[in-house]
Amino acid sequence: MYLHHVAAYLPATVVANDHFTRLNGLASDWIIERTGIRERRRAGAKENTNTMAIAAAERVLREAPGIDTADIDLIIGATYTPHDTIVTLAHAVQHALGVADIPVVSISSACSSLLNAVEIVEGYFALGKARRALVITSEHNTAYNNEHDTVAGHLWGDGAAALLFTADKLADTDLRVNEVITAGAATVGKATTAVTLRPLDRDIVMPHGRDVFQYACQYMTQVTEQVLSRNGLTVQDLRWLIPHQANKRISDVVLRNTGLPPERLVSNVETLGNTGCAGAAIGLADTLPGLQPGDRVVVTVFGGGYSYGAMLLTRE
Amino acid sequence: MYLHHVAAYLPATVVANDHFTRLNGLASDWIIERTGIRERRRAGAKENTNTMAIAAAERVLREAPGIDTADIDLIIGATYTPHDTIVTLAHAVQHALGVADIPVVSISSACSSLLNAVEIVEGYFALGKARRALVITSEHNTAYNNEHDTVAGHLWGDGAAALLFTADKLADTDLRVNEVITAGAATVGKATTAVTLRPLDRDIVMPHGRDVFQYACQYMTQVTEQVLSRNGLTVQDLRWLIPHQANKRISDVVLRNTGLPPERLVSNVETLGNTGCAGAAIGLADTLPGLQPGDRVVVTVFGGGYSYGAMLLTRE
Repeated sequence: MYLHHVAAYLPATVVANDHFTRLNGLASDWIIERTGIRERRRAGAKENTNTMAIAAAERVLREAPGIDTADIDLIIGATYTPHDTIVTLAHAVQHALGVADIPVVSISSACSSLLNAVEIVEGYFALGKARRALVITSEHNTAYNNEHDTVAGHLWGDGAAALLFTADKLADTDLRVNEVITAGAATVGKATTAVTLRPLDRDIVMPHGRDVFQYACQYMTQVTEQVLSRNGLTVQDLRWLIPHQANKRISDVVLRNTGLPPERLVSNVETLGNTGCAGAAIGLADTLPGLQPGDRVVVTVFGGGYSYGAMLLTRE
Repeated sequence: MYLHHVAAYLPATVVANDHFTRLNGLASDWIIERTGIRERRRAGAKENTNTMAIAAAERVLREAPGIDTADIDLIIGATYTPHDTIVTLAHAVQHALGVADIPVVSISSACSSLLNAVEIVEGYFALGKARRALVITSEHNTAYNNEHDTVAGHLWGDGAAALLFTADKLADTDLRVNEVITAGAATVGKATTAVTLRPLDRDIVMPHGRDVFQYACQYMTQVTEQVLSRNGLTVQDLRWLIPHQANKRISDVVLRNTGLPPERLVSNVETLGNTGCAGAAIGLADTLPGLQPGDRVVVTVFGGGYSYGAMLLTRE
């Protein structure tokens, strides 16, 4: 299985930290020191999870060499900030692309959904039921965020990314998907209360941020080492580590735990905030064009609930 | 792949049609004539999608011969009426069962999610990444329903069902999963506007019920015939047809279209209303104990967005 191409969509409006200084009295330096975040994007009034997903999907297909839209035979959407739970983002993308009668479903394991979606694609490929799959991650965090929440209101940003997976290698620039590992970790710590989004209450809340921080560091470290060791590799073999983009301090701890130097980290949380399950996918979109033959990348994720995962990719 | 056991959970409170007569002036006979629905269940004040999912999961494991909770190695949740999109129903079930470090994810393709969930399990089994999977369907429609909506407010009910799938046959009563077909149909008719649940607007609405009705009849008929013909069978070979439980008139049209006699239909919409993606699964829970060797069952579904699917099961 190969990752053929990735493309992101980011809404135009930039919200800098001083917005939260005015709103909640939080100094920009205080936000940066605790999270690394300087600014984030906000979707426009006519945008939502589905429109951003469509924009990312159309871009990945426009840019992908050698794939026609009509070739797509599976669409997996991922979000915890749904615009519509019936007309899901995957259905909105199917409608926009006009590809009939293919499996279409949207999923959530919160911020870690990207890798669950990839593992589901892996399953369809193994069954021979699909060969060219679109995975679209899209989060409209600002729709569900309470900006006046001084604990977590400044963390969230909006964005989307679309990934095109193929059963066969189509281009030299394709990345082989060596292995995907995913798991729920709802049995540990404050997993089921630490960060929640109950749509009828509207807001995303994070009453136990320290618990999330601790387990995010622990699980992303563990599963990165696991996916490497299962493939006979060490962190020395990695060109890039792309962790879930929640907080620069979490990424730094994972780097330090695994023994990777700072220059191996892909980080966009500084300019995008926490874009949920889209964050690591957006990082992948930025990283892909610069890869050279032999380069290896690990994407590792952690989500509320909790869930975690890692994926090893190789440019052959 | 085998279906080992199915169990339902239904909340205790029964809401009869006269509730909607008092509320909206809709006569019970008028509701019955158009939908077949006489009553439906409503979750209690302390219940939600996650608690009902846990109750169904605990019951299926309590009743299942020869499966320990610790054997479960995959949990797929399904709902379009989420209690929490971060602590999803699958995560809530993992937490309740206490099974660590297995893949856990929740999905939606609206009322047709059951079969997407089964197809995802099929993929994990094909990969060798799981052998004993829990699929849990759970809908808390009344949490998102506007009872004063005279078009669709009286249609919805709450309920859940859990299904236990195994890679190997464990008991004589297991049903072989011969084939699963799923597809999105977001490209036809009014697919992306006919029935929607935008959590920030709170209500489920169905502005184009006739479009839903028409395509539900068309697709459930087509895909039932497709799954049968691909397995060299005709409707004469079926013991039961279990369609999505949306409206008795839709089920009757599908029966008539396929040429099945009325006594082959499994129907619970009369007493449960439309329980979303749980409806057909609850029907399966009721049907399983009475099956004899050689009996065949087709489950066929249709969901807003749109999506459809069919699954052929055989008691060997």
